[in-house]
Amino acid sequence: MSKASVLCSYLDGGSGMPTYLLDIIQKHFHIVWLEDFEKDSSKCSNNILAILNVHGQPKVTQSLLERLPNLKLVAVVGVGYNHIDTKLLHSFNVKLSNTPFVLDDATADLGMTLLMAAGRNLCAVKDFAMAPDTTELQFNEVSCDVSSTTLGIVGMGRVGYKVAQRAKGFEMKILYHNRNQRPSVDEKAINATYYKTLNEMLPLCDYVMVTVCLTPETTNIMGAEQFKLMKSTAILVNISRGATVDQDALLKALNGGDIGFAALDVTSPEPLPRDHPLLKARNILITPHVGSATLTTRRKMMQKAMNNVLAAAEGKPLPSEVKL
Amino acid sequence: MSKASVLCSYLDGGSGMPTYLLDIIQKHFHIVWLEDFEKDSSKCSNNILAILNVHGQPKVTQSLLERLPNLKLVAVVGVGYNHIDTKLLHSFNVKLSNTPFVLDDATADLGMTLLMAAGRNLCAVKDFAMAPDTTELQFNEVSCDVSSTTLGIVGMGRVGYKVAQRAKGFEMKILYHNRNQRPSVDEKAINATYYKTLNEMLPLCDYVMVTVCLTPETTNIMGAEQFKLMKSTAILVNISRGATVDQDALLKALNGGDIGFAALDVTSPEPLPRDHPLLKARNILITPHVGSATLTTRRKMMQKAMNNVLAAAEGKPLPSEVKL
Repeated sequence: MSKASVLCSYLDGGSGMPTYLLDIIQKHFHIVWLEDFEKDSSKCSNNILAILNVHGQPKVTQSLLERLPNLKLVAVVGVGYNHIDTKLLHSFNVKLSNTPFVLDDATADLGMTLLMAAGRNLCAVKDFAMAPDTTELQFNEVSCDVSSTTLGIVGMGRVGYKVAQRAKGFEMKILYHNRNQRPSVDEKAINATYYKTLNEMLPLCDYVMVTVCLTPETTNIMGAEQFKLMKSTAILVNISRGATVDQDALLKALNGGDIGFAALDVTSPEPLPRDHPLLKARNILITPHVGSATLTTRRKMMQKAMNNVLAAAEGKPLPSEVKL
Repeated sequence: MSKASVLCSYLDGGSGMPTYLLDIIQKHFHIVWLEDFEKDSSKCSNNILAILNVHGQPKVTQSLLERLPNLKLVAVVGVGYNHIDTKLLHSFNVKLSNTPFVLDDATADLGMTLLMAAGRNLCAVKDFAMAPDTTELQFNEVSCDVSSTTLGIVGMGRVGYKVAQRAKGFEMKILYHNRNQRPSVDEKAINATYYKTLNEMLPLCDYVMVTVCLTPETTNIMGAEQFKLMKSTAILVNISRGATVDQDALLKALNGGDIGFAALDVTSPEPLPRDHPLLKARNILITPHVGSATLTTRRKMMQKAMNNVLAAAEGKPLPSEVKL
């Protein structure tokens, strides 16, 4: 019997499927590329068991679902699924899975990388050190401290907790805001102090890192009111989703001196339109949503996505199903 | 009685004395600027008690010492003093002090910042995210992991130990090479494994961080032989002194693929001449000797330098004298 198929967007580049993940897929399944499917869906549509959704591609539309009669699963290679119409999937009796846990370490690492690079002004001093006209060091240029400063974590889930574990090694004071207080054994392990009210925590922080999931409640959780409450030297780091930060308010806060700096791995949309004023702020650092972008992590994510597809093929419970 | 004086290079810019440190000096002493001293040394030379040496300035020469009959101390605002002719000082019966301890945290922070920025390819992804022509993210671009990789620390002194404490929060495996093995209680606190022989440790490391003091024994401690032993993907970080790394060998190793990347806060000389080939390597990140460059740390360093000058003025033992 021939292998079942999975539908993928395209190979390499942009939101395409990276070559370095193909072996994990092809060990079990045949890949149908979207372009070939669009040319002649009749040849392969019956055999497609799952859509592998990478960086939001292929887009899961009603028209696509109507042409996939035996589709069992949309397997998101990532954690966030706010780009998927869950009601639509449910109406087609198609399941949804994602790949939690395996990218927590890499994402927390990137959060700390952004925090430290922002605090120590890394990109600017690197540009200075490597510029063609630099002939003398500048002893009078200084940056912010990292060690022994105060970090406020907004959303103490798995990633937030891992950020705190890392920050503890720098003897940072850890504050956190979360819907629910963590058990005291968890808090003690990272010397963390709970703030039920976000706005009470913010004035105390040298760094604020946003690690919440994007929900209606956390959309724009960092807005004009929050920035006004922060220290004028404070540094905002966002590794959650772009929409957790009110970008118009952030721009005003950065330009008006309400806060000192922002380091964002996520924006809304991604990438920002090239004429977006945040790209012109002098006190910002933006990275292209690379929280999970290490080879090891991406391979773990694909393996986890495959485990879901394999379970769906065999009619077994999915290892990480998103309930619709 | 009028205040005693200290001799300083010049105000702000380059290796000058930063404005943000003046209050600490002027609380106790009058500042004589080198330019004024050179114009008419007879007016002020008798009153000068100490030279405040910042970033190697003012240069401590025989000609300068001959014109300072009441000089008691050269107070280096920093830890390294390899730019000072200690025999010359001794022959003039002038003492030497530096400012250890207070910059260890900031320097270890910068070491981790460089490690993470190099591993996660921060500057390149930032440039991509903020470039004028970027209109689509690249899911196929990946960087190295930080968490759960192996870090080899070359020189487990105060700064090396603080690097290890930070790296432990990332669940990195810590190996170290040092003249002497640390007591086992120190090793256990950071889960570190000792290698008496540097060359045995190097093949095991994903990251190698150099934190040794510069001595004749540690000059070029990282050379061609060492780079050949490292993983082809390994990342070298240097936060010690430029001369601990053989730069010609490093260039060959980077261009020839013996190692993957280098992140250097120190070079020899500083800054590198603008036509130096290391500045053109595609896999390097250089910062301008900013290990201690935070406002809090620089003020602590100056306070410590002042404590030495005050002790010298009163004929008391210096808090951090360098024995000549």
